[in-house]
Amino acid sequence: MMKSYQRAFHEAYRSQPTRLVLGLMSGTSADAIDAALVEISGAGDEIAARLLACRETPLGDLRDPVLRLAQGEGDAETLCRLDAALGEAFAEAAIATVAEAGFEIGDLDAIGSHGQTIRHAPNPEERWGRTVSATLQIGGAAVIARRTRVPTVSDFRSADVAEGGEGAPLTPMVDWLLLRHPEKRRAIQNLGGIANVTYLPAGGPSGAVKAFDTGPGNMIIDALAAIASGGALDRDEDGLIASAGVVCDPWLEDLLRDPFFSRRPPKSTGRELFGERYSRRLWEEGRSKGLSPEEILATATALTAESIARAYRDFLPGADEVVLGGGGVRNPALVREIRNRLSPLPARTHEEIGWNGDAKEAFAFAVLADRTLQGLPGNLPQVTGARRSVLLGSIAF
Amino acid sequence: MMKSYQRAFHEAYRSQPTRLVLGLMSGTSADAIDAALVEISGAGDEIAARLLACRETPLGDLRDPVLRLAQGEGDAETLCRLDAALGEAFAEAAIATVAEAGFEIGDLDAIGSHGQTIRHAPNPEERWGRTVSATLQIGGAAVIARRTRVPTVSDFRSADVAEGGEGAPLTPMVDWLLLRHPEKRRAIQNLGGIANVTYLPAGGPSGAVKAFDTGPGNMIIDALAAIASGGALDRDEDGLIASAGVVCDPWLEDLLRDPFFSRRPPKSTGRELFGERYSRRLWEEGRSKGLSPEEILATATALTAESIARAYRDFLPGADEVVLGGGGVRNPALVREIRNRLSPLPARTHEEIGWNGDAKEAFAFAVLADRTLQGLPGNLPQVTGARRSVLLGSIAF
Repeated sequence: MMKSYQRAFHEAYRSQPTRLVLGLMSGTSADAIDAALVEISGAGDEIAARLLACRETPLGDLRDPVLRLAQGEGDAETLCRLDAALGEAFAEAAIATVAEAGFEIGDLDAIGSHGQTIRHAPNPEERWGRTVSATLQIGGAAVIARRTRVPTVSDFRSADVAEGGEGAPLTPMVDWLLLRHPEKRRAIQNLGGIANVTYLPAGGPSGAVKAFDTGPGNMIIDALAAIASGGALDRDEDGLIASAGVVCDPWLEDLLRDPFFSRRPPKSTGRELFGERYSRRLWEEGRSKGLSPEEILATATALTAESIARAYRDFLPGADEVVLGGGGVRNPALVREIRNRLSPLPARTHEEIGWNGDAKEAFAFAVLADRTLQGLPGNLPQVTGARRSVLLGSIAF
Repeated sequence: MMKSYQRAFHEAYRSQPTRLVLGLMSGTSADAIDAALVEISGAGDEIAARLLACRETPLGDLRDPVLRLAQGEGDAETLCRLDAALGEAFAEAAIATVAEAGFEIGDLDAIGSHGQTIRHAPNPEERWGRTVSATLQIGGAAVIARRTRVPTVSDFRSADVAEGGEGAPLTPMVDWLLLRHPEKRRAIQNLGGIANVTYLPAGGPSGAVKAFDTGPGNMIIDALAAIASGGALDRDEDGLIASAGVVCDPWLEDLLRDPFFSRRPPKSTGRELFGERYSRRLWEEGRSKGLSPEEILATATALTAESIARAYRDFLPGADEVVLGGGGVRNPALVREIRNRLSPLPARTHEEIGWNGDAKEAFAFAVLADRTLQGLPGNLPQVTGARRSVLLGSIAF
C-alpha cells in the first residue's frame, strides 16, 4: 500500500492544473541529446500535452566514450565519470532549451531524463548463483537536479525489468494517453531505424493496447543508400534514389518470407536482424540479380512498407486509421509506398492530425515523468511483458 | 526555490511523529550487507533515533565480482547485472532484518540504501573536454523498492560531489544530530580501518562541526596480526598479542613523524597510505630492530592511540569528552592505550553513553534517508568541502 506521505506528494503534484516538464533523451546511436519542452494539463488518464519547443544538442566529445562503453570497453572509473559528464551535458541541454523557448529554468515543474542506455539486458541470466535481468541508463540525474534545481525523474526502465518485463517499449502508454480516439481504432506507426506500431482500440482501456515491432523502418534503406553512394550518403535523402527505381516484386515476396514477419506479436527486433549484415547481403543479392541501385532501394523501401501493411492485415485487422511518425515520414518514397499498400486505410502524419511529432521520445519521457510524479504506473504489462503495472523511475530533488 | 508539490511531500513525511527506517550499507571490503532498523522521532535538527535491530548478511557470490569491478575489471554488462543482483541481495537483507525484529516489511516508512561503492572519484579531472568529478554506488534501488514496496533513498554522495565536495564523510551530520551535547564539547572517535573523528562543539550549530581522519584505526593492527600469525588471524583478537608486548617508544616517535599526522585538518587518508605496504614495511622494520611480534603489535596499537591523542592536542584542544565507536572498541588493548594517552580526557564507548553503536554506518544512512525525506540537507559543507548544503539522494517509489 502506498505510504500516506507519498500519496500527499502525488496529490500535491497532480493538483497543479498545468505542469511544464522537460523531457531529455539520448538514443542508442548517441548522436545527440533530444530535449522537449512540454506543457501538460489534466490528470490521471485524461491529460493533454503540447510540445512548446524542442532542441537537438550534439553529444560531441561524449559520443565516442558512450559507444565504447556500450560495446563493453572502458572500466568502472570511465563509466562513473561519464555518468557525471553526461549529467552536465543533459543539464546544459535542458537550460538551453528552456531559454530558447523564452522560459526560465525555474519555471519547470520537473525534468524527465531517459539518459543514455549503456546496456539493456532484460533477458534473465544465471550469474553469481542468481537469476538476473537488468538495464542500465546513465546520465547523472543528481547532477541535472543540482545544476537546474528542478526535480529530475530518471531510470525509467529498471522497475519494469525488475517485474520481469522487457523495460521497453514505454512510448505506447504515451500514445494511449494522447492519441487514442473515442470512435476510431488507431495504429500509431513509428518509422525509426526499426518500425513499430502501437494499436489503440477505439475508446479502449490501456489494457487493450497492443504494441510490437513490424520490422525494418529506415535501417536497411539508410544502409543501402550508404553502400550505393560509397559512403557519401547516410540516408536516401527525400527518397530520391528509391523514387527513380521500380520494385522487384518476386524478390520482395522472397524477402517477406523471413520468419520474423509471420511471427505473432508481441515481438521485437533490432540491428541484430536487420542491421549492417542484412543490408550488405541484400545489396549483393540485388546486384547478382542484375538490379540497379535504384531498383534495390525501391525494393528495400517497399519491404518496410509491405511488412507494415501485412502486419496490419494479419495482426490488427480492425484498424480505422494510421498515424505515421518518426524520421521515416521525411522520406516521401517510403510514405507513398506505405499509403499505397495500406489503401484504403488512411495514413496521416502526426502533423496532419494536429499533433507535433518532433522529438517524440524526449516528449514521451516528459509525459512519463509527469505520470510518475502523479503517482501512476507508466508501463503497459501486456506490451513489456512485466508481471504488473509499476511506477517508473527515481526522483532526484 | 523548492516546488510547492515537493514542499507538500516533505511536510507530509515530517508530520509523522515517528518513522521506521531501514539503513543498508555494504562497505569497500564488500564482505557483507549491514542492515540497521531505526526508529526516528522528532523533526528537523531535533530528532531522536533508536536502533531496534541490526543484521549482517554475507555478500557471498557477489563479493568477488564487486571487488573486481572496483579494481577496474569487468565490463558494462557485468556492472549492469551486478547492480540488479545487489538490489536483490539488499532487498533480501532488508526483509530478513525486519522479520527478525518482529515487524512487517510494510511497517517501514522508508529505506536508505548507501549501496556498494564501485568508484569514488571526487577529484576533478579533465576528460572529454570537461572537468569531471563523480562517485558511483550501485545496488539496484529500483529493485529494492519493487521487492519491498518501500520508498528507497539511494545515491547519497553524488549531489555533494556535484557541488565540489568529497562526497564524504557523511556520518558527521548524524553524529551532530544525535550525539551533540548542550554543555560538553564531544569528540566522536570512530575506530574503523582508518580512524576518524567528528568534533561537536557544546550546543553548537552544525556549521561548527569539524571532522577529519586521525590516521590508522585497525588497519595496521589487523595486517600485522595476519603477518605474525602466518595468515591464521585477520585481527589481534581481544588485543591479546599487543597486550603481551611493550611499546617501543623511540620507534613510535619515529613513526609519528609521518607528515600526515602533523597536517592540519580537514584531511583524509586510506589504504593507499596505511595499507598492506605500510604494514609490511613496519613488520620488517620491527624485526630488523630485534623486536618480538608482541612488541611490534603493541607499538602499532600505540601508534593508532597516540596519533588520536596528538590530533586532539593539536587540532581539538577544547574537547571535554570522547565517545569511542567502530570495530576497534572490541580491542581492549587499543581502548586501554587510547584511554591512557587521552587521560584525563574521559573516553567512553557509545554503549557507555547509552547509545548502541552497532552497525553505525547502516544506522547513519537510515537517519540520512529520513533527513532527505524531510527535505533537509544531509551534508556538512565545511566537512566535505562542498560549495553548499544539499539534499542527498534519489528516491525510488
